[in-house]
Amino acid sequence: MVWTSGWKLASAASENGCLGLIGAGSMKPDLLAEHIQKLRNYFRDNGINKPFGVNLPLIRGDINELVKTILKEEVRIVFSSAGNPKAFTNIFRENNIKWVHVVASVKHALKAQDAGCDAVVAEGFEAGGHNGIDEITTLCLVPQVSEALEIPLIAAGGIATGAQIAACMTLGAEGVQIGTRFAATIEASSSDAFKQKIVDANDTDTFLIMKKLNPVRLLKNKFALEVLEAESRGASADELKELLGRKREMKGIFEGDLVEGELEMGQSSGLVNEILPVKKVIKNLLNEYDSAIKNL
Amino acid sequence: MVWTSGWKLASAASENGCLGLIGAGSMKPDLLAEHIQKLRNYFRDNGINKPFGVNLPLIRGDINELVKTILKEEVRIVFSSAGNPKAFTNIFRENNIKWVHVVASVKHALKAQDAGCDAVVAEGFEAGGHNGIDEITTLCLVPQVSEALEIPLIAAGGIATGAQIAACMTLGAEGVQIGTRFAATIEASSSDAFKQKIVDANDTDTFLIMKKLNPVRLLKNKFALEVLEAESRGASADELKELLGRKREMKGIFEGDLVEGELEMGQSSGLVNEILPVKKVIKNLLNEYDSAIKNL
Repeated sequence: MVWTSGWKLASAASENGCLGLIGAGSMKPDLLAEHIQKLRNYFRDNGINKPFGVNLPLIRGDINELVKTILKEEVRIVFSSAGNPKAFTNIFRENNIKWVHVVASVKHALKAQDAGCDAVVAEGFEAGGHNGIDEITTLCLVPQVSEALEIPLIAAGGIATGAQIAACMTLGAEGVQIGTRFAATIEASSSDAFKQKIVDANDTDTFLIMKKLNPVRLLKNKFALEVLEAESRGASADELKELLGRKREMKGIFEGDLVEGELEMGQSSGLVNEILPVKKVIKNLLNEYDSAIKNL
Repeated sequence: MVWTSGWKLASAASENGCLGLIGAGSMKPDLLAEHIQKLRNYFRDNGINKPFGVNLPLIRGDINELVKTILKEEVRIVFSSAGNPKAFTNIFRENNIKWVHVVASVKHALKAQDAGCDAVVAEGFEAGGHNGIDEITTLCLVPQVSEALEIPLIAAGGIATGAQIAACMTLGAEGVQIGTRFAATIEASSSDAFKQKIVDANDTDTFLIMKKLNPVRLLKNKFALEVLEAESRGASADELKELLGRKREMKGIFEGDLVEGELEMGQSSGLVNEILPVKKVIKNLLNEYDSAIKNL
């Protein structure tokens, strides 16, 4: 949810009964502090008392600075991803932070549990943006992680409807994490052009590429199809790095460059048909969940 | 289910309350006729009156001979896959055959409906063996196809437990098609060595390769890793065809060559922990289904 989940989206999600997360992936430490403070100010000014969290990609070069920001701003809930959780056990445990790590295989789920995480997000191949290397789908990943783990399990990857939430609960999840559906909300900080692309996408419009660098699920636009072509002729990791260049995510998601930017979205984009306010999205999800269970 | 679903597996599935399918993918017309006759003899000798079907890959060079066999043997139910259904509308409709086509995208589901199929199987990326090119997972494919179609929908891909059946019904399916779980049964005609590999496989042990020819999900054995290596350096379709050679499926699945054979299985292999009789598999699926719904 880089360039998408700032304080506005996170606060709207929390205010309406979800746990909103500020996505630090696209933020320098100062900007992260600003978003946390703005969310807190908004809650204070409106008499809202709800939890929120921050997502931290552990492989960031400045991860120690980001963690310092988390501690200084007294954030109580961290979702970490993309890195080895073990190295952060002491700091998160000593500071009594509720800590959830995102994984894409049973092995990494067990590592997160061993590292002392309070819960795990198991994210399938259909998820948008950065993805695991093993390509395990949510339908197959969730029951296998559920069987292996003792700590609570949150399902992610491809979920944009209440019926899918019910399906994931059936598979053993105790909650779900939703990205793409919330990226196409009024409150998301992504560009309108990007949000509209989520709405327009159908079932076959995304793919997982960049497998030699760091697999990522993108909309098939001009840039992404160039990467595919390079991969098909056997381009090396270095060539792909060159092609990727810098700031593609910002260009695509935040600035709305639909041709040269990276447009990260999940396969669930085919299920998103309207840009909506967060409150309405959550209401729809709950109604769909109830109907799905009633129809079973 | 090539080299796996002969008359023994199909009859056991039908006898125990499922719709068993004889998989014609690995059969010449004469052998298909023999399997149909053996199933019918077994049913007659045991006073069983249950439906069964035949799966026909429409791209087979000798498809017209296979269809003639179906008609001559008076098969009432056909599941077709891998090809254009439109070309078969007349023959299946004129002969009053119940006809279901396997698809992997909304577009192909609508084409099957337009061709006059009675139902559609929507099969996700996690499925074993031959697979669609769009890599849509069962969790994302089923609700999108369900929304688009008027005819009944059967979910497939990655399903090996009753909880997963419940999940797929939640997503809008009216039934499920299960492969890998039944490939690891006593009655499957595949080799014991192959069945044991399904039992041993974990969540990360299969992958989808051969994307320049015809995508197929295989266990990562020596042969499959050689294909991956060739693909990674940009091997052409012709090079891959050369590497594939002939009869890899027979070698792997039927003869049990675990090194040089193609070992087709789905991601659900990680959920299969025992070779069981079909009757026991079906009993387990129903019990798991009931528990999953009760626990919701």
